[in-house]
Amino acid sequence: MVVKVYGPTYASPKRVVVCLIEKEIEFEAVHVDLFKGENKEPEFLKLQPFGSLPVIQDGDYTLYESRAIIRYFAEKYKDQGTDLLGKTIEEKGLVEQWLEVEAHNFHPPLYNLVINVLFAPLMGATSDQKVIEESDKKLEKVLDVYEERLSKSKYLAGDFFSLADLSHLPFGHYLVNQTGRGNLVRERKHVSAWWDDISNRPSWKTVLQLYKYPV
Amino acid sequence: MVVKVYGPTYASPKRVVVCLIEKEIEFEAVHVDLFKGENKEPEFLKLQPFGSLPVIQDGDYTLYESRAIIRYFAEKYKDQGTDLLGKTIEEKGLVEQWLEVEAHNFHPPLYNLVINVLFAPLMGATSDQKVIEESDKKLEKVLDVYEERLSKSKYLAGDFFSLADLSHLPFGHYLVNQTGRGNLVRERKHVSAWWDDISNRPSWKTVLQLYKYPV
Repeated sequence: MVVKVYGPTYASPKRVVVCLIEKEIEFEAVHVDLFKGENKEPEFLKLQPFGSLPVIQDGDYTLYESRAIIRYFAEKYKDQGTDLLGKTIEEKGLVEQWLEVEAHNFHPPLYNLVINVLFAPLMGATSDQKVIEESDKKLEKVLDVYEERLSKSKYLAGDFFSLADLSHLPFGHYLVNQTGRGNLVRERKHVSAWWDDISNRPSWKTVLQLYKYPV
Repeated sequence: MVVKVYGPTYASPKRVVVCLIEKEIEFEAVHVDLFKGENKEPEFLKLQPFGSLPVIQDGDYTLYESRAIIRYFAEKYKDQGTDLLGKTIEEKGLVEQWLEVEAHNFHPPLYNLVINVLFAPLMGATSDQKVIEESDKKLEKVLDVYEERLSKSKYLAGDFFSLADLSHLPFGHYLVNQTGRGNLVRERKHVSAWWDDISNRPSWKTVLQLYKYPV
């Protein structure tokens, strides 16, 4: 039975889709329209009680939270497709560290930028300029640390592509291509080379072809 | 060589300390005073470039981000002390899911409450009433989902204590004991029983005895 992925047009579920492609796992999409509030309907809330995307179903096993799902598939199919976890416990620890950095340092200011720079104007809402300024500053500092790190290793957790890098793709795409802030990446030599490397992987190009972003 | 844990008086590092005790791993504390800005000094930034706590050193291996560190030790010492990961890949997936829920649903509103209700008045700063109200509402909704979940299984990931439960202890302690919001837990029968269970574990009592919270 193929894996079902809910909501693959949206950014966070793309984390899961690119992982499934790297791991050569068959899947099918179940579309969920957030703009119509389909994520708040009772049937969906039975799968994901917080009303968030993504959710996957692997047979009768249901799992949510994108970074939990990618860990699950990376481990379940450890010997299939690209190894995304590292070979030793120490390498895996660094993959976990940089997955956490993505979630807690990179993602929050970028998410705020995507909401305020990209979505708010489209939805007729007011952009919060103070949030935009603070988020820009935070993201610059974060990317300075990335630049230093990537001057020493090709990828975040070491010299191997891992879940830690993969997890940056969906919102990194917004940052580079749709918020008018590609310069934050391009001004940093090693971050720029790293972004070109990971965003040119065939798996990510396939994701972009299969599922257009809603915005 | 014993493990070094930086900053164990603060909340996030306590996640690591309680894990080390559950796993019966010897450790020693390295104190870092955030109020004196010791986390921004060059020597510390070499270990943790974002200037955050905790950091650990396991021999010559350095790792940061509390939830990465607890995964590392839970896996490195899988067969020692309490198993905190689950027995199957499916159980482990649910541990990961609820670790992510802790990080992305439970923690952010609670962190905002701790800052605005507890720290701001002590530091002579102004509490943001709007943030407090929004955080209270978010946390209530999150705990409603927990109540439903914990009516079906004794712990978050199933009928076994895991990293997912453990990760709630340091800020759960603030919620129940120091923000005047113990009622959010006590009004929910299953959440209340779960909190009593996990916060009465000898490991957590030891943490509280060894390292007083700074506030």
